[in-house]
This record gives sequence, C-alpha cells and structure tokens, in this order.
Amino acid sequence: MTFPAPLTGVVPPVCTPLTPDGEVDVPSLLRLVDHLVEGGVHGLFLLGSTSEAAFLTDRQRRRVVEAVAGHVAGQLPVLAGAIDMTTPRVLDHVASVTAAGAQAVVVTAPFYTRTHPAEIARHYRRVAAGSPVPVLAYDIPLAVHAKLPAELVLELAADGVLAGLKDSSGDLGGFRDLVTGTRLRPETTGFSLLTGSELIVDSALALGADGAVPGLANVDPHGYVRLYRCGRAGDWDGARAEQERLCALFGMVRAGDPGRMGGGSSALGAFKAALHLRGVIDCPATAEPQVPLSPEETERVGKFLAGAGLL
Amino acid sequence: MTFPAPLTGVVPPVCTPLTPDGEVDVPSLLRLVDHLVEGGVHGLFLLGSTSEAAFLTDRQRRRVVEAVAGHVAGQLPVLAGAIDMTTPRVLDHVASVTAAGAQAVVVTAPFYTRTHPAEIARHYRRVAAGSPVPVLAYDIPLAVHAKLPAELVLELAADGVLAGLKDSSGDLGGFRDLVTGTRLRPETTGFSLLTGSELIVDSALALGADGAVPGLANVDPHGYVRLYRCGRAGDWDGARAEQERLCALFGMVRAGDPGRMGGGSSALGAFKAALHLRGVIDCPATAEPQVPLSPEETERVGKFLAGAGLL
Amino acid sequence: MTFPAPLTGVVPPVCTPLTPDGEVDVPSLLRLVDHLVEGGVHGLFLLGSTSEAAFLTDRQRRRVVEAVAGHVAGQLPVLAGAIDMTTPRVLDHVASVTAAGAQAVVVTAPFYTRTHPAEIARHYRRVAAGSPVPVLAYDIPLAVHAKLPAELVLELAADGVLAGLKDSSGDLGGFRDLVTGTRLRPETTGFSLLTGSELIVDSALALGADGAVPGLANVDPHGYVRLYRCGRAGDWDGARAEQERLCALFGMVRAGDPGRMGGGSSALGAFKAALHLRGVIDCPATAEPQVPLSPEETERVGKFLAGAGLL
Amino acid sequence: MTFPAPLTGVVPPVCTPLTPDGEVDVPSLLRLVDHLVEGGVHGLFLLGSTSEAAFLTDRQRRRVVEAVAGHVAGQLPVLAGAIDMTTPRVLDHVASVTAAGAQAVVVTAPFYTRTHPAEIARHYRRVAAGSPVPVLAYDIPLAVHAKLPAELVLELAADGVLAGLKDSSGDLGGFRDLVTGTRLRPETTGFSLLTGSELIVDSALALGADGAVPGLANVDPHGYVRLYRCGRAGDWDGARAEQERLCALFGMVRAGDPGRMGGGSSALGAFKAALHLRGVIDCPATAEPQVPLSPEETERVGKFLAGAGLL
Repeated sequence: MTFPAPLTGVVPPVCTPLTPDGEVDVPSLLRLVDHLVEGGVHGLFLLGSTSEAAFLTDRQRRRVVEAVAGHVAGQLPVLAGAIDMTTPRVLDHVASVTAAGAQAVVVTAPFYTRTHPAEIARHYRRVAAGSPVPVLAYDIPLAVHAKLPAELVLELAADGVLAGLKDSSGDLGGFRDLVTGTRLRPETTGFSLLTGSELIVDSALALGADGAVPGLANVDPHGYVRLYRCGRAGDWDGARAEQERLCALFGMVRAGDPGRMGGGSSALGAFKAALHLRGVIDCPATAEPQVPLSPEETERVGKFLAGAGLL
Repeated sequence: MTFPAPLTGVVPPVCTPLTPDGEVDVPSLLRLVDHLVEGGVHGLFLLGSTSEAAFLTDRQRRRVVEAVAGHVAGQLPVLAGAIDMTTPRVLDHVASVTAAGAQAVVVTAPFYTRTHPAEIARHYRRVAAGSPVPVLAYDIPLAVHAKLPAELVLELAADGVLAGLKDSSGDLGGFRDLVTGTRLRPETTGFSLLTGSELIVDSALALGADGAVPGLANVDPHGYVRLYRCGRAGDWDGARAEQERLCALFGMVRAGDPGRMGGGSSALGAFKAALHLRGVIDCPATAEPQVPLSPEETERVGKFLAGAGLL
Repeated sequence: MTFPAPLTGVVPPVCTPLTPDGEVDVPSLLRLVDHLVEGGVHGLFLLGSTSEAAFLTDRQRRRVVEAVAGHVAGQLPVLAGAIDMTTPRVLDHVASVTAAGAQAVVVTAPFYTRTHPAEIARHYRRVAAGSPVPVLAYDIPLAVHAKLPAELVLELAADGVLAGLKDSSGDLGGFRDLVTGTRLRPETTGFSLLTGSELIVDSALALGADGAVPGLANVDPHGYVRLYRCGRAGDWDGARAEQERLCALFGMVRAGDPGRMGGGSSALGAFKAALHLRGVIDCPATAEPQVPLSPEETERVGKFLAGAGLL
Repeated sequence: MTFPAPLTGVVPPVCTPLTPDGEVDVPSLLRLVDHLVEGGVHGLFLLGSTSEAAFLTDRQRRRVVEAVAGHVAGQLPVLAGAIDMTTPRVLDHVASVTAAGAQAVVVTAPFYTRTHPAEIARHYRRVAAGSPVPVLAYDIPLAVHAKLPAELVLELAADGVLAGLKDSSGDLGGFRDLVTGTRLRPETTGFSLLTGSELIVDSALALGADGAVPGLANVDPHGYVRLYRCGRAGDWDGARAEQERLCALFGMVRAGDPGRMGGGSSALGAFKAALHLRGVIDCPATAEPQVPLSPEETERVGKFLAGAGLL
C-alpha cells in the first residue's frame, strides 16, 4: 500500500488500553481498532499523545505497532509517533516502529533541550534522511514548549522533508497560514494538513484542512466521520451540528478533580473510562504516574456518554 | 562501596565525548574521567543534561555508564541520570544504568505531559520503589517546565523516597528553604542538597549546600575543588575569588552566535571545545540536532581558557 | 442611543494617529473614523491594544474619546478600553472615558500583579458596579498573561456583570465553548461574543460569533464588512475568499525586521504606514518606545497594499 | 540632599496602609515610616510592588509621595516607583512623583505590550532624558514578563542612563554578572546594585550587592538592618543567623489559602496583617481586587510574628 499524499479524513490517535498491571492489553487494543475501522475512520495514528506514548516503554511501543499493523494488514494507513527528545533517540524509534509495520512516522520538535529554529530544521532534515517512510511534523507546543514556525514548515514541505503536519497548537490562524502557504507553492502538493483539535474540526475543514486527528474519535468515531463527510459535501450546517454534539461530549475531559490530578490524567482517564463503559476495552487504567479517576468521576463520564446518545 | 549520605563535594555532570560520526568516544571519556579524578572531584554524575543525556540513545547511555563505572571501580561514587518522560520509561533507564554500575540515579519530574504535584509525588514514589539504588531528584524547570515544590521535596525526603536533590532551578531562595527545612526534620538526615549552578557555588555552600554539580567543572575541576575546599574551611574571601574566576571562564557558554543556534548548542559546544583545546578529548562534536561551533566561535572559547590561565 | 445587546458586526479597534512629536493628531483621527464609517463598520472600539492605549497618557486617552464621540454623535456605538493594572485604576479610566462619551467600556483581567480566578471575578464585579455603562471583557493572554476561564465568563455573563467579550486569545475552541455555553443559559441573552482575530473571522462567524474586532479593519474596513455580510448571508465560500484576501494583506505585520524591533512595533507600524500610504492619516508615527519602520520596511507595507488592490 | 551614589543599605519598599474604604491612610503611613526610620533603614522606596503601586490611583500615588517626602524632610533618600506600561505613561508618573518630592525614580521594562530589548533600551533612554532625578531599573520578570539582559543594563549604566538596579528576578547568578560587570567598567562607578530578595540578602551582600529592598523589612526593619551591618562588618555567620530568622518569618506570605486567593493577595495581606498586629498601622486592608485574609489566616500571621519574637 502506498501512503496517501495527501493523507485525508479522520485519523484517530488510538488509545492504548492497558491491563490493571500496566501492560498493553492487546485484545482490547484490537477491539478498539475494529471499533474505529467500523466507525469509518480513514487511518490510524498510533503512539501519539492520546495513546500515552510518553508513558509507554520501548517494548510496549513496538508491541502496539506490531499488533495493530498486523491486524489491519494494509486496509488503512497506519502512522506511528516517534516521540522522543532529540534526533538520535527519535531515529531509534523510527527504526523500531517502521520495522513493526508503521507506514509513516510523526515527529515533534526536540524537547527537554532548549531549541532554536535552526535546530528544529536540522532535526527534521536528519530524521527524514534516516527514515524509510514519510515523516509528518507534530506541532504540540503544550508538550514541547516550542511552536513550529509556519515559514519553517513550508520550507521543509517544499524540500520534501515533511509529508504533512498534525497541528495540536490550537492556533487556527497559524494553521490557515499553512493551508494558504502550501496552496501557493506547487512543490508542496500532496502535503497533508491535519488538525489535532477536537472542537473546531468543522472550522479547520472549511478553511482547507485535509483531515483531523481528534482524540475523542476513540470514543465516537462515527460522529467525527459524519462530521468529515458533511464538510467534504459542503454541508456546513450539518458539520456544525455534529461538531457541537461532539463539543458537548468533549466536556468529559474535565471529569477529574483538578485538585487531585492534572488535565492529562483527567482527559486520558475520561477517554478510557468512556471506552470501558461502551464495552470496547476491558480496563480503564492509565499509565503511571497518572492519577486514576474515582468511581464518582467515572460516573460523570457516563453522563456525557448518555447525553450524546452513546450509552 | 556504600553510597555516601549525604553526598558532598564537587560532582561534575560528566560530558560525553563523541566521535565525528556521533558514537561515544570511550577512550576520550575515560581520559576526561581521569582528568576529573585528578582534579579532586568527589563523585561523578553521568547522563545529566551537560552529558547530553537527552541526545544519547539507550545503547549509548548504557555504554557510558559501563565504561566509567568499570574504570573508576568504586574509587568514588558514580551517579547516573535516568532522564525520560514518565515513570515506566524512567524505570527502564533505572534498570539499565544500575545494571551497568551506577550507584545512584538522578530523576526529573515528568515532562512532555502536563504534570500536577500529585503526579510528581506519585512518580518519585514509584521510581524509588522500583530502584535498587538511592534516587536523587533533579529540579530543572528550564527542561521540564515544572518547579519541584519545596514542601513536596521535604515530604519525599522525610519518607525516605529521595536521597538528595540537584537544584538547577537557579532559585537560591527556594534552595535555602530546603536547607533550613531539612535541618528542622530529623528524618531527613543524610539528605544531600547539591546546587547545579556554576555561578553561585560559594553562596550555596555558605548557606548550607552539601556540594555542587557544575557543568563547567568538566573544564576546570581544580577550580571548583579549590572553591569547595575554601567554603568548607570557612574561607569565604578565597571562595569568592575562585568563584569569580570561574564566572569569568563561564562566559564561554555565550561563544556561539545566538542567531545561528540555541543556548544549549552554544554552552555544550563550548565545554567540549574547551576540553578539546585542553587536550582532554579527541573531538569537540556535539550530538544532533545541535549546531556545531564555527572555528571563530571556537577561538572565542580559547580566549576564555587563556584568560583563566588554562591554556 | 441604547447600546445594542448584543453588539454585532465589524467593530474596528481604531488606530490613534500621532503627530511627529507624539501628540494625538485629531484631524487624522477623525478622517480615520470617517474612512471606517464610510467602510460600513458597525461600531468603533477606541483605546484598545491596536489603538496603542498602553502608550497613551490619560490626557491623550480622554482626548481620543472626546474627539471621536463628539464627531460620530451617536451614529454608531463607541466603546472605549479602560486598560490598566487593577480595579481602582481601571475605575478611574471608566469614569474618564464615559464622561468623554464612551457608551461601553472594555476591560482586561488585572495584570502586572499575579492573578487568581477569584481575583479576576472580583475585579469585573467591582468594575461593573462602578461603571455607568456596559462592561465587556477583553481576553488577551499575550498582554496580561492570564486566560479568562470560560466558566467564569459565563457566570459573569449570567449575573449581568459582563455585556460581552472580545476574544484576542487565538483559542477558537475556547471561544466556541462560550458560544454554545451562552446558548444554553437564557440569562445570558444579549451577551456579545466578538473575535479579536484578523485571520479567522469567517470561522468565528460560522460557529456563532456576533462580530469581529480586527485591527486590520483600520486598513481595509470594506473588506471586513464584505466578509461579515457574506457570513450573515450564509455565503461561506464568499466569506472564505474575502478572508483569504485579508489574510494575505495581514502579512504586512511582519514588515519590520525582528532583529531590530518587537512584533508590536512591526504590526502597529505597518497599520499606520498603510493608513498613511492610503492617504487617511498625516503621519505614520507610533508611540515610544516602539521602533519606527525604516523606509524599506514601509515599502514592504506598500507592496501588501498593492497586492490587495488598495493602492 | 544629594542622592547617594551608590545608594547602599536597607531600603524597604514601603507598604501603603489603606482605610477600610480603600483610601490612603496617611497617619498610619507616617507611623510606618517612623517605625522604619527608627529601625535604622537607609532609604525608603515608595510605590513599589509591595507598596501596591499597581493598585493605587494616580491621586493616591501622589498623596503617598507628598506625605512621606514632607515627613522625612531629607533625613534619608526617598525613591518612588513610576510603574506603568510604556514611556509616555511612565514619564507622566516621573513628573508627578518628583514634583511631590521623590529624589529618584524606579522604572520597570515596558509591560502589557510585547517588548524587544531594543525597545527596553529606548524606553530607559527616553525616561532618563525626561527625568529630573536619577533613574533606577526595576528587574521584575514575574510582573513584566521580561528579564533585563545584563549586557543591556551594563551599557545603560556606562552611558549614565541608569543610576542603579533593583533585582527582583530571583536570579542571583545574573545579579553577580552585574556586580562583576560594573567592577570591570570604570564608567559605572556609583551604580547601585540592590537585591529585591527577602531570602538571600546575606548571599547578595557577600558577592557585592550595595543593599537590599526587602518587602519583609516593613515588618522587621531592625532584623534587616542587623543583617546588613553584619554583612558590612564581614560577620557572615551573624548575617546568616539573622537571615535564617527572617526566612522563617517570611513564611507568613503563605498564610492565605491558595484555593481562595493568589500569591500576591496572600503576601501583601500578610505584611499588612503583621503591621496591624504589631500596632503600626490602623487597618490591614489591601486594595481591590485582592482577596482579604480571613481571621484564621491572620492568626497564622500572628504565629509567625510570635515565632520571630515580634509580638
């Protein structure tokens, strides 16, 4: 299977179900993948932030990719995050996930170290030179504390270094700069612009996004696929209605008490609780050191599901 | 050898010499270790930020610890960083570096993920439970974008979770809170408080630090050892004079052009250039994606060495 | 004239033309106002960030409001910023600008001081209690280093404390939370939600914004009014086309060399240079300590105008 | 009286006592000044952050300076903050506070606006050109979100633009760069380097500070004066002991519940509660929108006073 250029549609960052003792729960993972494929998604993004890539050991990361790539067997594109601090470490992950079957890799700017734009450019150029598959940039300032400059992304796109970008910056104005910027440069044809937002997928599609990578699509793939199809058909009222339903559902990410846990524990805990309540995965556990949701907080998640007609 | 409680003295974060093609240069590394031991240092901290731990692959990290632990053979304490994003990944590094001979591990707060104090506490408790050796906390907000709260550190010290702390926050007032806080809690006896600053080691010693972990001690271990001895002897004028000499030398970290590279590339590049110019290591290369110093910038480093009487 | 509830349409943050020696150039200001009114705008926002409110003395601020309010004489709503650090100082500005004729005031969260959500709530409640006219919140995290929490805004809207919000946070997902949140609370009827973005006005209108406050509307009011009308008519293709033309024009904000000046000097300098090149104002000077554009940088602004068919 | 060059010693940022309805309580203010003068302080800094300058109206600011300058009548130097966003507004404050009797002004980097180092330099040059009295820089990144670069401060010192600096950045290593930097440049003779820290005054004096501007000196001026005298006499053990006593007392700044209020409300509330409990001022009120301490929180402040032997 050739990797699509551009990649389009709904490409969920797939959650990684865990057993109560913190191991990858492969049967649950494959059930989740089936749930997504039946929901009509257009690709799978493994080992992203929503997948708890930052919490998985190297062995677990490989296990995830092997299991999913083997299971879907080329039915739809499988991307994998190669999330680590710097070039040499990222290249190790690239080798590992592509050996395990990933058809593209998704790479952030360097983190932990202080990073200059010249170093970000160097990073992507070295990673792409060492990767057997296309490289997509992952713009996630909340995690890496740097925003990818639009001019740099366009330059790397034009040079064939990057095949696409997942934008988790929340900055739709900057995303639009990329959309119009690629339109003006013929060398960037096939570059894939994906929004990482859950809340403004209709807006992103309307201004030219190729697709979306919403964490909440784990819980409700059908909803995001309907939304995508409305957008492609130019039915913006339908897209907005579907998006607003999903925004209400997204309220579940605040189920966890902010006095007891961070926003990540709460959001990932809610997604997994929802998948557990919907019967997709066996156990809602999140990886250490995340704080688990209490029974009461899990009940709150259930109310969001009920409100969206998903229980 | 029992790990000292508290660990005291000068404990340099040992640079990791690389070959021109990016591999660990073990002979240079061992020459650097000899240079430090001859300089009188009291311990070695491998795989810290100055060691480019963020840039080394897992294989390279293990290689560094094996080589150095074998070489010093218990003459002085060897600590190793277990720098990674979250608990499960850190525990993998702890297993690896202790198998390779590290006598203590140094661990930051979680990063990449958004982190709540409750999650930081949970992280250190889990890591300590899974570590065969003492765990020191590494407070480095510039890298992990969270400051370890003093109350949390004192609680973890009192509970025997943490054996010490390396403070690279630059916040001497907060460090003093720890010094006086541990003095008031008998359960924290033996807790080691080390400053990570290059510039105010005399101040930190005067207010009660047990020791220092200055990156610049790679270049001039004798200077920091003299400074430490002055402090221990209560010769604060001598300590200040030595510290000021070292502050002038530290100016080398700004050798790199800020238009071309970040502060990390410049500082680590300068330390390695200085070690190369002093004949300690074979090659001044830094890891990707850091930008190398130009010949002109290297010349600037040489002038700092000359000014400090080290060439 | 009753202040509209909600306020809708294009409400430019009016630039403040200055003489070469830094005084308010009233004739130019009134010509600018005429240019905006002829362009079809629906209200005028004086003393916002684009108006250089942060740079104007109290006397100059009052002069601006008096001149404009007198000139437009109730033809369209006149809002004025009451931009200062804390409640007592803001209340002084509220008294001054309403005495001068402002029909609503626009107020940020406290700044300079470290601010807790409870203090932000208290601030708006005290300001509203002391204001003879409606109070709109101004969410501008880049300036005040705090984001107004959506729940807090909705609570203050429901309590009648706030009459609207200008969102300059760039976070369209958060803005949508306000749009849907007000829809669910009947007590908030009449609350006005305005985007402060130049780049995604079409997106904001599509998801339910009442209007826009784009700095670039100083330069091209006709364009933003056309865009608004397309949106109101449900012509989203037309809105997008107009928006993309305006996005290209907005590139002028990067006319200034980032090695010589900050982004504010460049953007405000470009808007004023464009107004000067279009013959609307007499002098493109910006207030101290902003760095003026060079002739070459001004030429770049001219090219953007030419490209957009405005010269 | 000539303004001392350099200004040395303990120069408290004087609290501004308020009446229950938020007006300046002049009799209490003058009693506070007498308490400080009797405590042996070497100067008075009015309208700083601890003085709640950010919360006082222009009229109140002027009232404070007039009352105090008239009262001390040249016995000791009186400095006043001219805290505002940009050059023109700061110049208005400079005119006002010098007319009211201030012998020097203290000025931060611009805030609210995004600021480039070139604009900071321009700001100080314009302010100094328009000021009839010496200008000291106020480095307070927590409030203005920019750190004054050491090289820039040294350049402005050498050019006679700045007469000194109050460092509230918490970065003692950077402060040391200024101490040694001024020593190397004869043109900077007389430049005054003051630490704004409460917690490391002994450290700052030991490395060459001219004096200190600690908010806590409102509560215990005698303590800081003893500490300063120990430092000047080279009695570093005595200085440390006094400093540690003051550090324990400083714990009062955490008296306020962080769930109910920000750190500023808590710290300023504690200082004023302490002054009230010590009988120096009539009312512990802080300005809006700060949250007042509860009776229980005030009791906590009392315990810190008792612990330090001040009740």
